[in-house]
Amino acid sequence: MAVVGKAVVGKAVVGLDLGGTKIQGVLLDGDGEVGGKAKVQTPTGGVDAVVASLVDCVGQLTSRRHIAAVGLGTPGVVDPGTGVVLRAPNLAGFDGPVPLAALLEAALGVGAGSVRIDNDVNVATVAEHRQGAGRGCRDVLGIFVGTGAGGGLVLDGALRRGSGGLAGEIGHTIVRPGGRRCGCGLDGHLDSYAGRASLEREARRRAEEEGEATLLVELAGDGRMKSGVFAKAATASDPLTLELLDEAVDALGTALASAVALVDVERVVVGGGLAGKLGPAFVARVAEATAARMFTRRPVDVVPAHLGDLAGAIGAALLCT
Amino acid sequence: MAVVGKAVVGKAVVGLDLGGTKIQGVLLDGDGEVGGKAKVQTPTGGVDAVVASLVDCVGQLTSRRHIAAVGLGTPGVVDPGTGVVLRAPNLAGFDGPVPLAALLEAALGVGAGSVRIDNDVNVATVAEHRQGAGRGCRDVLGIFVGTGAGGGLVLDGALRRGSGGLAGEIGHTIVRPGGRRCGCGLDGHLDSYAGRASLEREARRRAEEEGEATLLVELAGDGRMKSGVFAKAATASDPLTLELLDEAVDALGTALASAVALVDVERVVVGGGLAGKLGPAFVARVAEATAARMFTRRPVDVVPAHLGDLAGAIGAALLCT
Repeated sequence: MAVVGKAVVGKAVVGLDLGGTKIQGVLLDGDGEVGGKAKVQTPTGGVDAVVASLVDCVGQLTSRRHIAAVGLGTPGVVDPGTGVVLRAPNLAGFDGPVPLAALLEAALGVGAGSVRIDNDVNVATVAEHRQGAGRGCRDVLGIFVGTGAGGGLVLDGALRRGSGGLAGEIGHTIVRPGGRRCGCGLDGHLDSYAGRASLEREARRRAEEEGEATLLVELAGDGRMKSGVFAKAATASDPLTLELLDEAVDALGTALASAVALVDVERVVVGGGLAGKLGPAFVARVAEATAARMFTRRPVDVVPAHLGDLAGAIGAALLCT
Repeated sequence: MAVVGKAVVGKAVVGLDLGGTKIQGVLLDGDGEVGGKAKVQTPTGGVDAVVASLVDCVGQLTSRRHIAAVGLGTPGVVDPGTGVVLRAPNLAGFDGPVPLAALLEAALGVGAGSVRIDNDVNVATVAEHRQGAGRGCRDVLGIFVGTGAGGGLVLDGALRRGSGGLAGEIGHTIVRPGGRRCGCGLDGHLDSYAGRASLEREARRRAEEEGEATLLVELAGDGRMKSGVFAKAATASDPLTLELLDEAVDALGTALASAVALVDVERVVVGGGLAGKLGPAFVARVAEATAARMFTRRPVDVVPAHLGDLAGAIGAALLCT
């Protein structure tokens, strides 16, 4: 990071994306380009173990004295003002409030205020807006179809957090009143029809309770039914997979048409692990389903995300620029 | 408008709300207070007749030389930048683009740029935000349940128009996929379950096709089934009315819970003719239905509008301040 000709040692911004299974890190240089990548497993031993792994990931990217700032995206509900993760049910030890920014600052030996935190899909949306599929747009709705279905909103160029920090929660759009139960306990949400974990639950239920043979269970066995399993089973035209994905496309089209009617964004960017594995053809189907449900009959710009797995980490780094 | 002690003649801003049945006008003084009101019938003779009636309404409020500016709210799709009403199916002669701002400027003999136009629910939302039930809030979602169900969004203090000028169209939220047909031709929209015209259509269909006796048809006869008819029939516990209004409350709760999850507004203001006639108890039911559908289980601030019939005209005047 030494800047030639200026006789100063440059500092870089680190971006970290704390996920349920892995921590993805990037080093962002002064031009906003990715200058390094690192990945470590997310430990299941609680908050201290998570902080240690975050430090480990940073250490793989740069030495501590070269850190200008660290941005961190986490699942769950976050208060960016205080750097506290209020609740992240997918992370062991994060059932209650955790002052993660302060803990990481102490562990890294950096000054107070050096670590900034926000919700993972919020930062991923910012990344797609600034450097990815939403570049050049004033407004972007980012929707990330992974373990769950979540989203973020950039309106007039700025991330919308909302009055309670919840803006962008398109996964809880009611797409089928009285329908399949969501992880939040309510019925018929988009997440219940499009999130990977919900699809896995439904596939296993259909296999066990209704005795339906499906490649999904065959390929996944007792392990996690990964996104790649859905992609493989779809390619093989497994009937249950096709049915579940048809429902997912319907649900996504329904939620997006309603969302676009309300906020009228210029572009919708579809990312996340499941959408990534299913590929551009899946996003094209979602675009078609959305357009068919738009009351104005106007085409809606629904496109695949560009930054893939790195969106969260890049967006986290962008919190500090 | 003569300002005592300053020896100048003050000028006032006029606000006009062009509705399908009437034109409501207000005079707004320098403090933003309503200094006069006027009302004329909306003619059915086409664009020239509408312009003449708008001029008539202005004339009842003030003399032309005292006009500082005129704000106008109209139904349909509007381009505020050019002052053109692109399409307003509820107004005779407005099936295609009408340069209404320019026509009204010419008819009033005021300078170019003196007349500003926006969508009627957009301006009503602005009025409720600035002077009504949303005063003091950064964010307001205005939902107006009248002939149709429409809405407007004020985010971070500013009216959101959106990339295509359509923001706030919550009436086209899909609340029941495959459900009752909306005026726009698609199925299951909020408007189909909560808009007065849709409720009238459904009530007449049920009476005619299914032979259901209902006070709604009895009270309305062959005339328009006005909002007051719904209120009276509800008070008399007319079964079909109660059923339709239960569905309306459900639909409103569904659409609002999804909308709040997406944009996370501080307050929802419920106005419009039908909501006004049904009163605060109806809005309280909508608030309850919304809260029951919120994934965060947090209370949602859903309150009745304050400005009643004048919201549109006041908001139109506020376009010019």
